[in-house]
Amino acid sequence: MSIITAVDVIDVRFPTSQSMDGSDAMNKDGDYSAAYVILRTDEPGLSGFGFTFTIGRGNDICVLAAQQRAQPLIGRTVLDLVSDLGGIYRELKSDSQLRWLGPEKGVEHLAMAAVMNALWDLAARHSGKPLWLLLADMSPRQIVDAADLTYLSDALTRGEALAMLEELAPTRAERIAKLEVTGYPCYTTSAGWLGYSDEKLRLLCQEAVDAGFTHIKLKVGANKDDDIRRLGIARSVIGYETNLMIDANQVWDVPEAIERIAALAEFKPLWIEEPTSPDDVLGHAAVRKAVAPIGVATGEHGMNRVLFKQMFQAEAIDYCQVDAARLASINELLAVYFMAKKFGVPVCPHAGGVGLCELVQHLSIFDYVAVSGTLEDRVTEYVDHLHEHFVEPCIVKNGAYVVPTQPGYSAEMYETTLNAYAFPHGTYWASVQDLR
Amino acid sequence: MSIITAVDVIDVRFPTSQSMDGSDAMNKDGDYSAAYVILRTDEPGLSGFGFTFTIGRGNDICVLAAQQRAQPLIGRTVLDLVSDLGGIYRELKSDSQLRWLGPEKGVEHLAMAAVMNALWDLAARHSGKPLWLLLADMSPRQIVDAADLTYLSDALTRGEALAMLEELAPTRAERIAKLEVTGYPCYTTSAGWLGYSDEKLRLLCQEAVDAGFTHIKLKVGANKDDDIRRLGIARSVIGYETNLMIDANQVWDVPEAIERIAALAEFKPLWIEEPTSPDDVLGHAAVRKAVAPIGVATGEHGMNRVLFKQMFQAEAIDYCQVDAARLASINELLAVYFMAKKFGVPVCPHAGGVGLCELVQHLSIFDYVAVSGTLEDRVTEYVDHLHEHFVEPCIVKNGAYVVPTQPGYSAEMYETTLNAYAFPHGTYWASVQDLR
Repeated sequence: MSIITAVDVIDVRFPTSQSMDGSDAMNKDGDYSAAYVILRTDEPGLSGFGFTFTIGRGNDICVLAAQQRAQPLIGRTVLDLVSDLGGIYRELKSDSQLRWLGPEKGVEHLAMAAVMNALWDLAARHSGKPLWLLLADMSPRQIVDAADLTYLSDALTRGEALAMLEELAPTRAERIAKLEVTGYPCYTTSAGWLGYSDEKLRLLCQEAVDAGFTHIKLKVGANKDDDIRRLGIARSVIGYETNLMIDANQVWDVPEAIERIAALAEFKPLWIEEPTSPDDVLGHAAVRKAVAPIGVATGEHGMNRVLFKQMFQAEAIDYCQVDAARLASINELLAVYFMAKKFGVPVCPHAGGVGLCELVQHLSIFDYVAVSGTLEDRVTEYVDHLHEHFVEPCIVKNGAYVVPTQPGYSAEMYETTLNAYAFPHGTYWASVQDLR
Repeated sequence: MSIITAVDVIDVRFPTSQSMDGSDAMNKDGDYSAAYVILRTDEPGLSGFGFTFTIGRGNDICVLAAQQRAQPLIGRTVLDLVSDLGGIYRELKSDSQLRWLGPEKGVEHLAMAAVMNALWDLAARHSGKPLWLLLADMSPRQIVDAADLTYLSDALTRGEALAMLEELAPTRAERIAKLEVTGYPCYTTSAGWLGYSDEKLRLLCQEAVDAGFTHIKLKVGANKDDDIRRLGIARSVIGYETNLMIDANQVWDVPEAIERIAALAEFKPLWIEEPTSPDDVLGHAAVRKAVAPIGVATGEHGMNRVLFKQMFQAEAIDYCQVDAARLASINELLAVYFMAKKFGVPVCPHAGGVGLCELVQHLSIFDYVAVSGTLEDRVTEYVDHLHEHFVEPCIVKNGAYVVPTQPGYSAEMYETTLNAYAFPHGTYWASVQDLR
């Protein structure tokens, strides 16, 4: 019986601020980073890899929190853990002293995501299946047992969750077969970072269309005239057959959001993303009512399932953008997917950052196979950077994620990457220090 | 011109879990702790003291976060900082890399509270006034300039905030004079921790009545029959002239809360506190509708002003229980007080823990003097423990906080306390280690 022998948590940071990759109206100079967890076992070749995503400073705080949160795993039997992923999740989250620091939000929740992502990765590797298939091979009851339904019973009962999974269980194989041909549809955000020049924007829009993308997203929210000019450039390149989405990254108050979105309505965006504070359920509902038919999207900073519950109850969003490294891994994500299905809101996960694309492809595929059963109005984010650091990077062809086949949650980074970008003593960061 | 020369952040922990002080249905064995910030200056005798409150493990994470958050203060001129407490708040919170870890919630927000609390303490000491008077001597415009109104304009405009302060400004002195006679009314939670025996509960209820308290709070939420028995004991001692409040510390789902509260209605509680997830605005609104005339109270885990805005907009609460170490200090608290006034909800701050009573007395006094102008339906929490560690502990007489007169935010701990309870190397913790 193999056991968990050690937990290593590594502060990995990439100097993305230098290229303005990832620049938006709120986050002008992020250094994309990961608090990267390795669960080591005494079984040769078996480890679990997971992470949460941050944008630089403070990544060390997440590392410390993840180290503490993972301590109870050391010495535990792998088989026990992977056979009851709901049980160990509840055990880790039951630490009331650590709970106080959230509860279920902020650094502690990011750390919980990192640790549980690594444990789900370990479970998938242990079973020899990619994560989406590990889930898709579980019975409805096993899936619901893994989900965190705490605080949700006024919106979704356990019975309802079971019933929706049971309805689709007999036909899961058909949808898997379909996706293996088509892939899962995605859109690109790589064209439209706020720090890019007009020329670069034009070029990247054309490249995106040429690569087969039917949905393209641009950052907005800094300056009103710039927004209008940039959207004009994008539409002049991609036309109106291709969908255009816009993302304000939380910079507006509610009345301001309504006014600024109205000024962009002529460009017919499919959705406005993060128009205001990610915590503001009622604010999003007000914006949504005011800007229809432009859809409202949010969720990458959605702190936990209770926030998403309210977004659904208040009819505040048209698109639900869960984040695989901010919610507490599959356990909490499952609950959001169940609620989204019940309330009829498509889940279009947030991705990009470090490795988020690698994770969310599994979520979207599982959602289609076992929960929603449809691709309608669904498109998952894709951003083309930092994939080269992953041992099994996601593959996008013709605007769609190719179904992953390797065991795990696609979360493993190369040793060479860790050696170079560990902060502050990796070879890259040490060399930068030397130059100063 | 004196400057900030250093920032020390100390991990202070008290072994409260041994006595079950502070035990409730969610938090069974907290070790009350503080991430304690000292802003040192080169002016003899001038320092600023502040903290956030946690319940043990993870306090070190808050310490690390506070150290990072406070770095930009080092080398800055004290006079510049204390003359523009809104400006420095906005500067510290504008770090977009650290913002990602919340935003404005969890560990990073607790750390921001600790640092800004210390800076407000420094400002009050620098002016030679207790914090409540520092505020009460500011003009309406100065107060509004210090407040964080971001994301609030759909509920409260800057103009509205100014107007409410201007209306009461001419009569501030009258209310100060009144409070100097009566003190600010408070209630006690010391009687009803969940880990206490029936006998101890009975004794403490009698002591509370004898001490002049007109409001007493009990913990509920563990076991239904225990709740009924304990409330019966309390009512048999205090009668129905004294107000009884109950606190479930977030252990129920929404439907469960409604059912469990109904079973306690015969004891006529004034309010039910934290009936469910602190994030659940719509859940609290549903509970409030169902359990009226029992009031609904929450806020000690209210993560930021955007949450409180929604609590008010959704008419979800009857009592607003802000926490002085969870919201980002005076800057954010001011905004909540303004909104509470506009929406007609009394603010009854959460206290207890480590030093929270010392802080909230200032808030309540300022609220009465300059914002709400009334004591109606207002009562501030008081818990009788750990005050002996503070250089200027709050004083409660006849169920009321005595107006503090010493300069500062009453946040300074004794050196002897720090030497004993610094974790893990203080003399107390070292001696406990030796025993193991």
